[in-house]
Amino acid sequence: MLGCGSVGSQVVRLLGEQADDLAARVGARVELAGVAVRRLDAPREVDVPADLLTTDAAALVARDDVDLVIEVIGGIEPARSLILSALENGASVVTANKALLAEDGPTLFEAAEKAGRDLYYEAAVAGAIPILRPLRESLAGDRVTRVLGIVNGTTNFILDKMDTSGAGFADALEEAQALGYAEADPTADVEGFDAAAKAAILASLAFHSRVTAADVHREGITDVSAGDVRSAREMGSVVKLLAIAELRPTPEGDDAVSVRVHPAMIPRSHPLASVREAYNAVFVESEAAGQLMFYGPGAGGSPTASAVLGDLVTVARNHRQGTRGVGESAYADRAVLPMGETRTRYHVAIDVDDRAGVLAAVAQAFAEQGVSIQTVRQEGRGNDAQLVVVSHEATDAALAATVDKLRDMEIVREVTSVMRVEGTEE
Amino acid sequence: MLGCGSVGSQVVRLLGEQADDLAARVGARVELAGVAVRRLDAPREVDVPADLLTTDAAALVARDDVDLVIEVIGGIEPARSLILSALENGASVVTANKALLAEDGPTLFEAAEKAGRDLYYEAAVAGAIPILRPLRESLAGDRVTRVLGIVNGTTNFILDKMDTSGAGFADALEEAQALGYAEADPTADVEGFDAAAKAAILASLAFHSRVTAADVHREGITDVSAGDVRSAREMGSVVKLLAIAELRPTPEGDDAVSVRVHPAMIPRSHPLASVREAYNAVFVESEAAGQLMFYGPGAGGSPTASAVLGDLVTVARNHRQGTRGVGESAYADRAVLPMGETRTRYHVAIDVDDRAGVLAAVAQAFAEQGVSIQTVRQEGRGNDAQLVVVSHEATDAALAATVDKLRDMEIVREVTSVMRVEGTEE
Ligand SMILES: NC(=O)c1ccc[n+]([C@@H]2O[C@H](COP(=O)([O-])OP(=O)(O)OC[C@H]3O[C@@H](n4cnc5c(N)ncnc54)[C@H](OP(=O)(O)O)[C@@H]3O)[C@@H](O)[C@H]2O)c1
Ligand SMILES: NC(=O)c1ccc[n+]([C@@H]2O[C@H](COP(=O)([O-])OP(=O)(O)OC[C@H]3O[C@@H](n4cnc5c(N)ncnc54)[C@H](OP(=O)(O)O)[C@@H]3O)[C@@H](O)[C@H]2O)c1
Repeated sequence: MLGCGSVGSQVVRLLGEQADDLAARVGARVELAGVAVRRLDAPREVDVPADLLTTDAAALVARDDVDLVIEVIGGIEPARSLILSALENGASVVTANKALLAEDGPTLFEAAEKAGRDLYYEAAVAGAIPILRPLRESLAGDRVTRVLGIVNGTTNFILDKMDTSGAGFADALEEAQALGYAEADPTADVEGFDAAAKAAILASLAFHSRVTAADVHREGITDVSAGDVRSAREMGSVVKLLAIAELRPTPEGDDAVSVRVHPAMIPRSHPLASVREAYNAVFVESEAAGQLMFYGPGAGGSPTASAVLGDLVTVARNHRQGTRGVGESAYADRAVLPMGETRTRYHVAIDVDDRAGVLAAVAQAFAEQGVSIQTVRQEGRGNDAQLVVVSHEATDAALAATVDKLRDMEIVREVTSVMRVEGTEE
Repeated sequence: MLGCGSVGSQVVRLLGEQADDLAARVGARVELAGVAVRRLDAPREVDVPADLLTTDAAALVARDDVDLVIEVIGGIEPARSLILSALENGASVVTANKALLAEDGPTLFEAAEKAGRDLYYEAAVAGAIPILRPLRESLAGDRVTRVLGIVNGTTNFILDKMDTSGAGFADALEEAQALGYAEADPTADVEGFDAAAKAAILASLAFHSRVTAADVHREGITDVSAGDVRSAREMGSVVKLLAIAELRPTPEGDDAVSVRVHPAMIPRSHPLASVREAYNAVFVESEAAGQLMFYGPGAGGSPTASAVLGDLVTVARNHRQGTRGVGESAYADRAVLPMGETRTRYHVAIDVDDRAGVLAAVAQAFAEQGVSIQTVRQEGRGNDAQLVVVSHEATDAALAATVDKLRDMEIVREVTSVMRVEGTEE
């Protein structure tokens, strides 16, 4: 095992506590050969026999009595080099490292293929929730068309707080930090980097294509205001940070992959809307199965360790049978659609002068970009008025241009909320 | 393929429509060798080439160019004999047949083991929802402690109708029949036989033990009244037909399996409470992963076919690699706890005479059976009063005896609602 932090220490605990069950399920006892860490004397959540601990991770993965390497260090290096040497050396690998998989998955998959070994990573997306195995195995006979995920617990906790208490982003973040749901430096979560890595992994599996973090259009939640959340509430919706992977027709009529992370309004009746606090859920649409949802704890040492050990049992069984599981499946080789060409829907709230012709002028701004309006709600407020427009689907570029145009119009005092709308039928 | 009805015809459709994707995922083209039916000239939802149709199922499974048999006839015979000959003949089997698996699974598993072939049956429980693969693979490193499932769409539709419209059972059933959610003879659904078969399958997988339909304590929903549903509503709960499989300590302190199907009140805040109409969902609790939920369409030709084809891809890949997937896992060999010894909680509503000492007398009836009361709500109504009691956990036998006793008491006019309570912490 490489790393013995939040996840690693729970893996060690379970390897001990469940030893007999694991042996029965694998068909042989699983023995911990060694645990590589950075600091031998760091305090740990679990007792690790001193003779198993080492700071020489490279030597551990080079041992030829090691059949399986669990990587729970995280980050790009040294995790990548260690995984590659483990595979070259004939070991299979189980990892929870979403950052590495999303940045450089193909290098790892090729190495696994070349070595004829397994590379499993269920824990990398949505913690304990079994979502990768269902995507690559249970739905292998179906055509997945869309994946919508709440895959970051920190941001869901913050948005849920904003929704239930009316708090602004800063206050909700502070509360999340105080309760241990957000880190001191919350960038990876609130700017959507963590969700983007998971979106890339989900898109690759759902669409049998290579999608990396660099392909993911990413917007975080730092600009989501109390007003946005209120505006969502008024239209029976809720704001969630979604990781979205969907098949979308290109202008040429092929199927391309749209993959993106951004806050979006979804109707409260949508199954994802009721995902509270730091829970995660992944909603999958496919042609034959219809709509499925997978729900559970998306992080935490012990839930993540459960996913790691599930992979361990499969990989160990494969090893004993001299076989391997499903490797990378990228045969469909679909292009990634640029965000500007992706068709989305916008919710736009505008403070306007309360005079005749305002609605017509605003409607005209949408029409000029070829964006058709689904609903518009007008509310007079003193000598102001507010317009809330929800568009039909149009390219994201046309919608963004419409908003730019609105901001320049004299009758528009302020565009108070702009947010995409998901989870509703056109 | 054996059978070409609701499910089978959708399998045929998808085998055609997804042929290229299936080939890429399996690593070889999947060819339909033949389709056994009862009536050659029956109308079908899909075009089946005439030369593939046969009424001689036995000859089809005996062909030595057949690697894989899909059984979607249903029922016990001839499905069982056909599956057994297929396995003996060296083919692997994919089936959706919950009735057969729950009645006589061990015979089939042993035949698969002996033949060294795969027997997969994801479609048998909760249609398209991937639940068996997660239980036997994703959670293989964890200790599952409880499975609560809404696994019958018909009864969920009826109970949901009763909840939203206040209708009684008979009216709700009639509506379900009119809309095609219930069959003309609804016995298998409303009496809980279908859910009991699924409960047995879930319990076997979750607890690595043999559990058959005969082990399942079964109560249907025909006695659920509008009053029960109203009573649930008043305490912030909803009535669902649950398939329950849980680990429970025996009086001797071992872990035994409690497996049962009955209507129960669950709090509206529970993830299962929001499962509407004919949808299914399975809620799983395990030691490390915590609480997971899997949600989706539990039936229908096309969703069920998606699950069948997911299994087909796995089994076909195994076949090409000369390997097999996880077989039966019954090593834990846990006993099934009789219902009387299972600890449950009861909700009991009682119409009583409105006079002093009534509450004390009722409390005494509970105490005599060693049942402690968690809450009691008293409501005066004219010269009647109603008591609503929710108990702490006690053996089902003690609770049933308490209710019998209440019925005999002079001050008790009527026990108007008796229902178990699930999904809350003690
Ligand atoms: N925590 C979660 O809830 C969660 C959920 C899903 C996925 N994951 C993923 O799981 C992985 C591990 O996360 P974590 O939360 O367990 O991280 P963590 O608590 O920070 O633990 C990291 C471990 O790696 C060790 N380590 C760091 N650099 C090393 C090096 N150069 N050589 C050897 N060991 C080294 C550390 O050693 P010392 O202990 O000596 O410092 C520590 O034991 C990451 O990829 C993360 O994204 C985590
Ligand atoms: N329908 C669902 O939503 C659903 C969901 C989950 C699981 N399942 C399971 O899937 C299985 C099939 O269900 P279904 O709804 O597709 O049933 P169905 O519509 O009644 O179809 C049964 C098929 O089996 C054929 N058949 C009957 N007896 C036969 C025999 N002796 N030899 C050869 N063929 C025979 C019938 O032939 P003819 O067409 O010539 O009459 C028919 O094509 C069952 O085990 C069921 O429990 C169904």
